[in-house]
Amino acid sequence: MIHAETIVALATAPGTGAIAVIRLSGENAINIAASLFHSVSGKDLSKQKSHTVHLGHLKDETRIVDEVLATVFHNPNSYTGEDVVEFSCHGSPYIQQEIIQLCIKKGCRMAQPGEFTLRAFLNGKMDLSQAEAVADLIASESAASHQLAMQQMRGGFSNEIDKLREELLNFASLIELELDFSEEDVEFADRKAFQELITKITHVIKRLIDSFAIGNVLKNGIPVAIVGEPNVGKSTLLNALLNDDRAIVSDIAGTTRDSIEDELTIGGVGFRFIDTAGIRETSDRIEGLGIQKTFQKIEQAQVVIYLFDAEKFAESTAALKLEIETIRNKYPQKNLIKVANKTDRLTESQLKSLQSEIDNLLLLSAKKGIGIENLQNRLLEFVNTGVLQSNETVITNSRHYDALVKALEELNKVQHGIDSNLSGDLLAIDLRQALYYLGSITGQVSEDDILGNIFANFCIGK
Amino acid sequence: MIHAETIVALATAPGTGAIAVIRLSGENAINIAASLFHSVSGKDLSKQKSHTVHLGHLKDETRIVDEVLATVFHNPNSYTGEDVVEFSCHGSPYIQQEIIQLCIKKGCRMAQPGEFTLRAFLNGKMDLSQAEAVADLIASESAASHQLAMQQMRGGFSNEIDKLREELLNFASLIELELDFSEEDVEFADRKAFQELITKITHVIKRLIDSFAIGNVLKNGIPVAIVGEPNVGKSTLLNALLNDDRAIVSDIAGTTRDSIEDELTIGGVGFRFIDTAGIRETSDRIEGLGIQKTFQKIEQAQVVIYLFDAEKFAESTAALKLEIETIRNKYPQKNLIKVANKTDRLTESQLKSLQSEIDNLLLLSAKKGIGIENLQNRLLEFVNTGVLQSNETVITNSRHYDALVKALEELNKVQHGIDSNLSGDLLAIDLRQALYYLGSITGQVSEDDILGNIFANFCIGK
Repeated sequence: MIHAETIVALATAPGTGAIAVIRLSGENAINIAASLFHSVSGKDLSKQKSHTVHLGHLKDETRIVDEVLATVFHNPNSYTGEDVVEFSCHGSPYIQQEIIQLCIKKGCRMAQPGEFTLRAFLNGKMDLSQAEAVADLIASESAASHQLAMQQMRGGFSNEIDKLREELLNFASLIELELDFSEEDVEFADRKAFQELITKITHVIKRLIDSFAIGNVLKNGIPVAIVGEPNVGKSTLLNALLNDDRAIVSDIAGTTRDSIEDELTIGGVGFRFIDTAGIRETSDRIEGLGIQKTFQKIEQAQVVIYLFDAEKFAESTAALKLEIETIRNKYPQKNLIKVANKTDRLTESQLKSLQSEIDNLLLLSAKKGIGIENLQNRLLEFVNTGVLQSNETVITNSRHYDALVKALEELNKVQHGIDSNLSGDLLAIDLRQALYYLGSITGQVSEDDILGNIFANFCIGK
Repeated sequence: MIHAETIVALATAPGTGAIAVIRLSGENAINIAASLFHSVSGKDLSKQKSHTVHLGHLKDETRIVDEVLATVFHNPNSYTGEDVVEFSCHGSPYIQQEIIQLCIKKGCRMAQPGEFTLRAFLNGKMDLSQAEAVADLIASESAASHQLAMQQMRGGFSNEIDKLREELLNFASLIELELDFSEEDVEFADRKAFQELITKITHVIKRLIDSFAIGNVLKNGIPVAIVGEPNVGKSTLLNALLNDDRAIVSDIAGTTRDSIEDELTIGGVGFRFIDTAGIRETSDRIEGLGIQKTFQKIEQAQVVIYLFDAEKFAESTAALKLEIETIRNKYPQKNLIKVANKTDRLTESQLKSLQSEIDNLLLLSAKKGIGIENLQNRLLEFVNTGVLQSNETVITNSRHYDALVKALEELNKVQHGIDSNLSGDLLAIDLRQALYYLGSITGQVSEDDILGNIFANFCIGK
C-alpha cells in the first residue's frame, strides 16, 4: 500500500550540523526528487538502483540551492515500505528549510509527527508495539531504557503476545463453531485444555503486568528522594556521583543532562533525584506545610536517601534516630538508604559508635570521593539488573500495560464463566474482548484514534 | 594522501532527531565499520561497492547497539577523498554517543572541528577558499549569504584569483630568468605588457576589495539602528516586519530567529536591528553619556531608521527637525530613513502638513500594518541586489580581504618600481610577495597556523 501523497520532513535533529538529512516518502518520492536533482555525472535519479547514493545539485529552476547526496530506496525495501529518497545536504537551518519548501513546491506535503513510522506500520514493515519502540529508542537516555526499547523493537514482545493471542483465537473459533451447532449440543472446544490455556495465558499476562513496575522506572529513571538539611552536602554528593559515571564520557553538546542537573546515569541505569527539604529542619520552623511537601516528594520516590552531617551527630544520635524513625514509620515500603556525610572529620571511634547506633549506615565523604562506589552499588541493588541480562520481556509502555490489565480482566471473566459452566456464546463474548485487547498491543486490531494518539507523540521526520 | 588515523564524529546537528549520521573517514574507516556492522543479509561491508547503502545492526561484541543504515564511499570519491563510512542510526543522543564510543574502541579518533573538510583540502578535493565557503554555507541564514557562499564554494572566486596569479607568475618567472642572465642585460619580460598586466590585476583586486563592503553585510546582516523614544512602536514595527516576511514560513524548531529577536530577513537579505535610546529623550535628562552611547550605536549601523510618534508632532515639528538635523549633521554618510508611526491617529491634513515639513518621510502604522511594505522596499534599496543577480564575485571573508589588500600593496610597490625603472631583482621580491598573498587565498601556499585558524571555526563533524 503506497500512499499517493508524498511526504517530506527533516529527519535529523533541528539546528545546525555539518549535514542534515531530508526524507521523502510516497508514490512520487523518486520522481519529485529527480525533478530537483541534477547529478554531476548527468545520471537520471529516477533510473538508479535501490540503495545507491548520488552526488549532485538541487536546483530551483536554474538557481542552485545546494550540493547534496541523494540516496534512493525502492519499495518495499525502505523504512516506510514505500519509495523513499533521502537528501543529505549542508546542515544549516536555512538550507533545510529551502529544500523542504522546494519539495513542497514540487508536490510533497509536510509530514505529520510519526507519519513515516505510521506508514511503515500500515505497510506491514513493523507492528504497533515495534513502532512504539522506535519512539522509545529515540527518547532513550540510559543503557537500560535503550536496551528495553531495542528488545521491543526487535519484536520479542510482539511475538510473545501474538503467540498467546493465536492460541486463544483457536479456542475462540472452536467455541464460536459450537454456537453454529447449538441445536446439537456438541463441544468442539475441549474444556479441560481450554481451562489449562486460560491458566497459562493468565499467568504470562500477570508476569508481564508485574514487569511494568520495573520496566517503567528503567525507562523513565528510578526516582530517588534525597532527604537532608541544607549544607549536608547534597550537591557535592550529586557531583561526586556524576564524576564517577563512566557511562557518559563524550562531550557532545545536546545531551539532556546539561539542562536537567538532577538526572544521573549510574551503571547504565537512569536515576531521577528529587530535591526535598529536611524533615527535622522544617519541623523546627513551620509545622505542617513544609513537612507535608517533603512527604509528598518521598511518596513519588522508589528510593529514599537520608543524608546527614556526621559531625553534627558525633556526640548524640537521639535527634537523628527520631527523624529516621519518622520516615521509616510513615513509609515502611520505601527503600531507605541512610548516609552519613563528611565522615572524614570524625575519628575512628566516633565512626564506630555511629555505625553501632544506626544500622546499615553508609559512611561517605562526598568531597573526598570516599564511599561513592558503595552508594552506587546500594542504589543499583534496587534495580533487578537480572531483568536486563535475561531475555524476559519487560513492559515499559503504559498503553500496553492498560491493554494487558483489561485483557486479564476479560480472561478472569472467562475463567469465572468456565467455573460456572456458562454457555459458549457467553464465553465467546468475553473471549473476543480479551482477544481485542491483546490484538490492540501489536496493532492487529487498531482504531484510528488510537493510532493518532500513538504517532502524535513522535517527532516529525520519523 | 589517505590519513592513517581514522576519525569519527557526529555529522548531523546535536540533539534528538528521527535519525542521526555518524561519519568515519580514514585508512581504516571501512574495516572498522565492517567489524561493528552485521548486515541483515550476511554481507561483508568491506566488500561492498562505493556509494551503496546497507541495512544491519551495530554490535558491541554480542550486544546489539542499534539498527542502522551503513553507506560506503571508496576513496577518492568521498567528501574527504579518503575511505568514508556513514552510519545512519536512530537519533537519540544516547545512541549517538554509544556508536561514537564503539568506533573509538575499535581504533577511531574523535575528529577535531573541521577536520573532515581539512582532509578534503589536503587531498585536493577543494581549495582553501572553497573549504571556507562550506563553513559559511552551513552558517548562512538568509538567501543572500547562502547564495554568496554557494558561489564561493563552486569555485568562481578561486578561479578568478588563480587566473590572476598564473598570469602574474608567468611574468615573475620571466623577470627571474633575466636575473640569471644579468650579465647580458636582456629583458625577457616585455615591460609594456607587464605594465598593462599590473594595471589590469590592480583593477580587478580593487574591485574585489570594494565588494567586501557589500559582501560582508550581506553575509552578516545589514546593521540597522532604530532611533526613537520608548513607546514610539519599535517592537510593533519589528513584529510587523517579521510577520510580513514570506521568506521563512516553516515552523521547524531551531531556526536562529527564536533566540535573536532582532535579526530579520527581508526579501532574502538579513538585517540586524540595533537597539538605541532616543537622542532627544536623553538630551532632556543626562547630557553626554546617554547620547554618546546612542551615537556609538549609530556609528555601527549602515542604515538609521528614525522612528517617531506622528501624533506628538502633529502640531509642531520644531523639536523633531532639530533632532533629525543633529543626526544628519553628525552622520552625513549614513542612510537615514525617517518614519512617522501611529499615522492612523492623524487627519489627512495633519499628515499632509507633516510630509511637507519633513522631506522623504515614510508614513506608517505598525499596529495596523500600513506602510510596512514601503519601509521594506526602502531598506532593500540600500542593498545592491544587482550584485546577487549578476555573476560578479563578491568577497565575504575578512581573511581574503586582508590578503587582497596586502597583495594590492605589493602590486603598488611593483608599479612604483616599474615607474622608477627599478632592476628586475628588486621587482621580483615584491612580485613574489604579491603572489604569496594571492596564493594564500586558495591555499596554494599555506601555513599550518593559518590552516589551524580556519578549521578551528568549523563545527565538529564537518
